[in-house]
Amino acid sequence: MASERKLKLGAIIHGVGGNMAAWRHPDIRSDASVSFEFYTQQARKAEEGKFDLVFIADGLFINEKSIPHFLNRFEPITILSALGAVTSKIGLVGTLSTSYSEPFTVARQFASLDHISGGRAGWNVVTSPLEGSALNYGKKEHPSHDLRYKIAEEFLEVARGLWDSWEDDAFVRDKASGVFFDSDKMHRLDHKGQFFSVQGPLNIARSKQGHPIVFQAGSSDSGRTLAAKTADAVFTGHESIEDAKRFYQDVKTRAAAYGRSADDILIFPGIGPIVGRTQEEAERKYEEIANLMTIENALNYLGRFFDHFDFSQFPLDEPFPDLGDVGSNSFRSTTDKIKQTAKEQRLTLRQVALQTATPKGQFIGTPEKVADLVQQWFEEKAADGFIIHSSVPGGLDDFVELVVPILQERGIYREEYESDTLRGNLGLAKPENRYTLARRTPQDFVKSC
Amino acid sequence: MASERKLKLGAIIHGVGGNMAAWRHPDIRSDASVSFEFYTQQARKAEEGKFDLVFIADGLFINEKSIPHFLNRFEPITILSALGAVTSKIGLVGTLSTSYSEPFTVARQFASLDHISGGRAGWNVVTSPLEGSALNYGKKEHPSHDLRYKIAEEFLEVARGLWDSWEDDAFVRDKASGVFFDSDKMHRLDHKGQFFSVQGPLNIARSKQGHPIVFQAGSSDSGRTLAAKTADAVFTGHESIEDAKRFYQDVKTRAAAYGRSADDILIFPGIGPIVGRTQEEAERKYEEIANLMTIENALNYLGRFFDHFDFSQFPLDEPFPDLGDVGSNSFRSTTDKIKQTAKEQRLTLRQVALQTATPKGQFIGTPEKVADLVQQWFEEKAADGFIIHSSVPGGLDDFVELVVPILQERGIYREEYESDTLRGNLGLAKPENRYTLARRTPQDFVKSC
Repeated sequence: MASERKLKLGAIIHGVGGNMAAWRHPDIRSDASVSFEFYTQQARKAEEGKFDLVFIADGLFINEKSIPHFLNRFEPITILSALGAVTSKIGLVGTLSTSYSEPFTVARQFASLDHISGGRAGWNVVTSPLEGSALNYGKKEHPSHDLRYKIAEEFLEVARGLWDSWEDDAFVRDKASGVFFDSDKMHRLDHKGQFFSVQGPLNIARSKQGHPIVFQAGSSDSGRTLAAKTADAVFTGHESIEDAKRFYQDVKTRAAAYGRSADDILIFPGIGPIVGRTQEEAERKYEEIANLMTIENALNYLGRFFDHFDFSQFPLDEPFPDLGDVGSNSFRSTTDKIKQTAKEQRLTLRQVALQTATPKGQFIGTPEKVADLVQQWFEEKAADGFIIHSSVPGGLDDFVELVVPILQERGIYREEYESDTLRGNLGLAKPENRYTLARRTPQDFVKSC
Repeated sequence: MASERKLKLGAIIHGVGGNMAAWRHPDIRSDASVSFEFYTQQARKAEEGKFDLVFIADGLFINEKSIPHFLNRFEPITILSALGAVTSKIGLVGTLSTSYSEPFTVARQFASLDHISGGRAGWNVVTSPLEGSALNYGKKEHPSHDLRYKIAEEFLEVARGLWDSWEDDAFVRDKASGVFFDSDKMHRLDHKGQFFSVQGPLNIARSKQGHPIVFQAGSSDSGRTLAAKTADAVFTGHESIEDAKRFYQDVKTRAAAYGRSADDILIFPGIGPIVGRTQEEAERKYEEIANLMTIENALNYLGRFFDHFDFSQFPLDEPFPDLGDVGSNSFRSTTDKIKQTAKEQRLTLRQVALQTATPKGQFIGTPEKVADLVQQWFEEKAADGFIIHSSVPGGLDDFVELVVPILQERGIYREEYESDTLRGNLGLAKPENRYTLARRTPQDFVKSC
């Protein structure tokens, strides 16, 4: 088995780049975040590189300090559905918050996307880090971090229940007898929980993947627990291979504690590779973007992780301020890391802001160097795969054209898709319908052994 | 102006047909309601016929008595987004309920669809007729008919407010100065109403249509009032031209009472034309479908309008029972009409069930006859256009290939699209952003006169 382990790849498509200033680069299309043409080109490029999936991030609150392309971007369900029609093999994964939506609608939209795309849908479960989200959804207050994860866990339980509303062979459609469906294979969920009451059944058949793929993107303790219990994949971020390995091991161990195999959950660190013909060329590409970043922009970018906290009140060149609890109800794993690093490395506010806003990362250099690092992280079990976000113009194109062929030549990455479904390409088993499973006799289990 | 009035056309795509039994016909693909290939073919056929729009109906509750294709069908936002990618001119209109969703999410999904499709999005506002919907959304009870319409009105007010979050020219994206947007042209809605509190701004720019097109599909008194106040178009249904004219006149008069022009709101009766080379051939096509309908199916179909009321408890061949209030909180305009017709025409339960489940309608016969009727309804102001639903195999294809050329020859229907947007093709003006409007000086108004 171990020798068959293959690297997985995803691509975040985020228009004008993940930071405040990349849109100013002359080679970046500044309206890319709402250009369907751009999204189509990027998704097809990723498919050309045999990527497992494209990934659409999201958020539910903006103000004038938000990252430019967050102010004006496609909503994930709509753009993924449209991309499904212009691609044929690549998975379609999007962020949707369990804190401000209804399980019946969300389960249905992802199931419908899975049908439309022939089994390529994936849902990145988030709980919404920004307090302001509550204001757009008529809530008195944003739920606390722990409460959000409790809601998320029940939400996901309901969604998985709804996805089992119909057994795989429920729709018999026998024209002669007039039987459209087998009523024994339609199931009402009748969920009554702490946060949700949902009767069911869902008004769409079980899809090709059984359940759409579930990503989980929080790396806090609550996030890891939720992932370990139920997610198919985790989207995370680490600066060093050591940190990444610890996280990888931790999540796999937690999954085992919930009776799952380590292979049932895949770990995807996000990386922003920058490829050049030489190390110098790659560094130059980084500098071009980094130099566009003003300190005001960098403070806003940093502030967003702390729920739009205003860092401009502190002196720039003194030690990073003691923030107490600020940020702990927001992007907690990120804010904890920023605080810790600032303390350990005795960084000033200016240093923290610029490092956060224009992180350089390790994955910068020649195609061989980037491929070496990818291979190392993969083989040393810091990652099962990566989510690539392009932080420089043409970043995804460079990775697909220059790095992917090296990974293929080394035999750690596919030359062709193994399957038509995202689940199949990720090497994850289709979950059996709970009611079908319950109906199986001991003899069935003996036979299947 | 009056001489320039052109017929509008929409096509409902609903897979295996609007009734309980059509899926059994040998020429109907029984899995059509979840076939993206089928939906693509139908949307392209409608576009070939220069239709203004395709229309995706919806519902939020099913049980074992539901119409077969309602049990297993695409969710509107996802299928419309996917169809946007495989068409280029036709409008994309879908049903979404204001009783079980959030204005921020709905405004955003339709705005995103409008961006993706280059200005072709439309939203059919419904309030959900079925009590059971509440059970899928954790609500103690389904809101009453009147309350649902109050919620809908405020919901729509919020959505329109969010669609104005950004003025049309807000995103300046000036690379030299680093100004991504003009902060004077970003607006927080700060809505605090009876049912919703929504701060805004929406995280997507104003779209090409300004606001996506708003359809309204309830023909009750509350439905007509909502439509008259704010909708761009009404989807309705009438058996006779006289009824249709009365409805048409009533809605236009109501709109005028709200200070709108009669041309600001378009009336689309739904019709199920059946075309044959001869009258006999058309009648035969009808009979083929009608004969597939069992009385049990017909009672279920009838019962659904009365919120899944069980009609099997009554004798079939005695007068239609007195139901009192049953059905008045569901599809009210339909149930009122059924009760009234049964009484006036002294129909039995069997007659009512079969007439409701397999309505023959007038639009049946040769292409010329169908074209004559369409022209008459249009010219006598019973309709500004029609929503065509195919009730027999190949129904839409027949209409496009046989009836449309006649309507074009008669000069009442377009030969080519006038615009790239749904709004443009419908001949409706783009609403000016409320904040841009408020900023205009008296001189600006003088200039524009």
